[in-house]
Amino acid sequence: MVAQMEPITSIASTAPAPFVAAHSVASFTFERLALQRGGVFGPVTLGYETWGTLNAAGDNAILITHALTGNTHAHDAEWPDDAKIAWWNPLIGPGRLIDTSRYFVICSNVLGGCYGSTGPSSIDPQTGRPYAMRFPIITIRDMVRAQHRLIEHLGVRQLVAVIGGSIGGQQALEWAVTYPELVGKVAVIAATAALTAQAIAFSEVERQAIMVDPRWQEGDYEPGQGPTSGLAIARMLAMITYQSEEGMEERFGRSPARFNTVPSPSRATDLGGRFDVEGYLYYQGELLTRRFDANSYLYLSRAMDLYDVSAGYPSLETALSRLRSKAVFVGIRSDFLFPAAHVRWLADKVRSLGGDATYVELDSPHGHDAFLKEWEQMTDALSLIVK
Amino acid sequence: MVAQMEPITSIASTAPAPFVAAHSVASFTFERLALQRGGVFGPVTLGYETWGTLNAAGDNAILITHALTGNTHAHDAEWPDDAKIAWWNPLIGPGRLIDTSRYFVICSNVLGGCYGSTGPSSIDPQTGRPYAMRFPIITIRDMVRAQHRLIEHLGVRQLVAVIGGSIGGQQALEWAVTYPELVGKVAVIAATAALTAQAIAFSEVERQAIMVDPRWQEGDYEPGQGPTSGLAIARMLAMITYQSEEGMEERFGRSPARFNTVPSPSRATDLGGRFDVEGYLYYQGELLTRRFDANSYLYLSRAMDLYDVSAGYPSLETALSRLRSKAVFVGIRSDFLFPAAHVRWLADKVRSLGGDATYVELDSPHGHDAFLKEWEQMTDALSLIVK
Repeated sequence: MVAQMEPITSIASTAPAPFVAAHSVASFTFERLALQRGGVFGPVTLGYETWGTLNAAGDNAILITHALTGNTHAHDAEWPDDAKIAWWNPLIGPGRLIDTSRYFVICSNVLGGCYGSTGPSSIDPQTGRPYAMRFPIITIRDMVRAQHRLIEHLGVRQLVAVIGGSIGGQQALEWAVTYPELVGKVAVIAATAALTAQAIAFSEVERQAIMVDPRWQEGDYEPGQGPTSGLAIARMLAMITYQSEEGMEERFGRSPARFNTVPSPSRATDLGGRFDVEGYLYYQGELLTRRFDANSYLYLSRAMDLYDVSAGYPSLETALSRLRSKAVFVGIRSDFLFPAAHVRWLADKVRSLGGDATYVELDSPHGHDAFLKEWEQMTDALSLIVK
Repeated sequence: MVAQMEPITSIASTAPAPFVAAHSVASFTFERLALQRGGVFGPVTLGYETWGTLNAAGDNAILITHALTGNTHAHDAEWPDDAKIAWWNPLIGPGRLIDTSRYFVICSNVLGGCYGSTGPSSIDPQTGRPYAMRFPIITIRDMVRAQHRLIEHLGVRQLVAVIGGSIGGQQALEWAVTYPELVGKVAVIAATAALTAQAIAFSEVERQAIMVDPRWQEGDYEPGQGPTSGLAIARMLAMITYQSEEGMEERFGRSPARFNTVPSPSRATDLGGRFDVEGYLYYQGELLTRRFDANSYLYLSRAMDLYDVSAGYPSLETALSRLRSKAVFVGIRSDFLFPAAHVRWLADKVRSLGGDATYVELDSPHGHDAFLKEWEQMTDALSLIVK
């Protein structure tokens, strides 16, 4: 029942972005997806990876949903001990919390992404050119509904759990609300019912930085010729919002840059030296431009802003009372993008509506990114729903 | 003893920026200023305003130091009741806390600024062209030493107080440390001994947004032809950091934009609508481009980053123990750019070194900007040093 694995190069026909993963990504294509904001879009390809084997009943699957610029490679069977090679390696694998010897673990690239799924960099079959900004505005619900098609295709009849952080946490929540009968347990990590005004504001500054770059060309850049300066600036800002004042102080303080080799996005001369935090952010900005499509960034970050779990329901309560899964909501003490207080509020709300919700807070100085760093605390939190 | 008031147009010969204030700004020019980071710079013109009359002893002066994009117009004698016309109007005037019928109140535009003082947009007399990025890297200490020349010129022998917020608070602190014998009292508002790594990081994202704008031209844009898109994006981000998650949630939440008339910096089409917070930030970005020079923004924000009160002293303690003034340190509960805890720490440090320092915290949801909004609490806080 495990889908055929194809090298990512075979996906190049639909997604000619210059971003090629080192690992194999399978793909599944379906013809049409009705979108939350209206209209029908297709064809839709989802890139995905799986680990472990689906049982005959089709009920031992766990779906992992990735973060904004994340990809399908949550686990690497060959290099299971390196969190840099696969982003949730320490949580996934034979004998680990998300035990691939027991569970059939799936991670798919989101609709709108650039790691094997149809997104703005994919070729529009009607024009033979990338969709670019002609790609439709997509939502978290659209992503989840596309994933639903994928798990049906894979023969999954019941999800043991859906687990994700950040925009992946929004998807996990949306899964539990949209398909309550399919989702046994859910972990909503560093995500809330809807973004704050401040988070939307940061997000929009990031997008403006991309779209003001003359190489953006209203989205119609050639593959490899995109708005790298703008995307690097967007990433610099995003990296600040993924960390915390406390964590950055500890890590960088006011030290001078250890490395001066990475140029800044503007290539301008440093003004009176370079702080370590600046060198770090230039490096992170540069890295993202090598692996991520700028238009995907626009669409995916916008989907985060637009997400509101109550959309289409008479009230937030109506939406949340649909939830049947045993749920763990994980906040992070130092997260200011998805403040812990808001995650806790959401858990309390679900519980007040009769849901089985637990709130766990990661005590970490690492800000929003803690769900990609605090392995012990993450293991403890997730062991409330996965054993 | 009050210096002659000149219309700001007379300053145009040295500062031909397209930013003309509606009020009169006096100016004082001196030939040479030795800079903290080395070298000598000149001539230096400072634009300034004064209110009230200096007494014969020259000891009834109060110096007000302005914020990053602020100007000399802290008070408007004609329109004393409008905080939009003059940024500290509610605190300054006859019969008000900073009583212009008793005190001689001075506010000068900082060195590096674009409101009458020599800055990057001023004409370099050696080349006949604006300094642009040939302007030297200046520091808070340089600003303060230039202000010192101004108050000597005005005949001030003793300052009753130096009062300022944000970069103005850095200047106030620097005044008290550099010229302890001259400064009777000091109010350091929403400022700390040195910026956090996070604040430097935000600041650098803002500068990169400016410098990546092709119209920046490595600083050599023609007056009125500057990097308005980049500067608008910088301002959008800065405005987020001047507010708070709590304050923005209260003010904007997730409401759709009330006004859609202001284009975004990139002029790109809105992606799935426009949130109120986005419309507000576009508007604030646009406003700044009409009144502020992009190169000044680079230099002044960098001076904030570089500021460290201990620079040039064997230790922080040595620097702070120079302080002789009765000091009030004002933190703001919701400020994340200059966290209240850091302001309190600084006050405690000064007191532990034998200084007369009081810490006051503004209980406000308005973030860093609260010192420009919370008039009652500001009056209470400053009444500890001014009566």
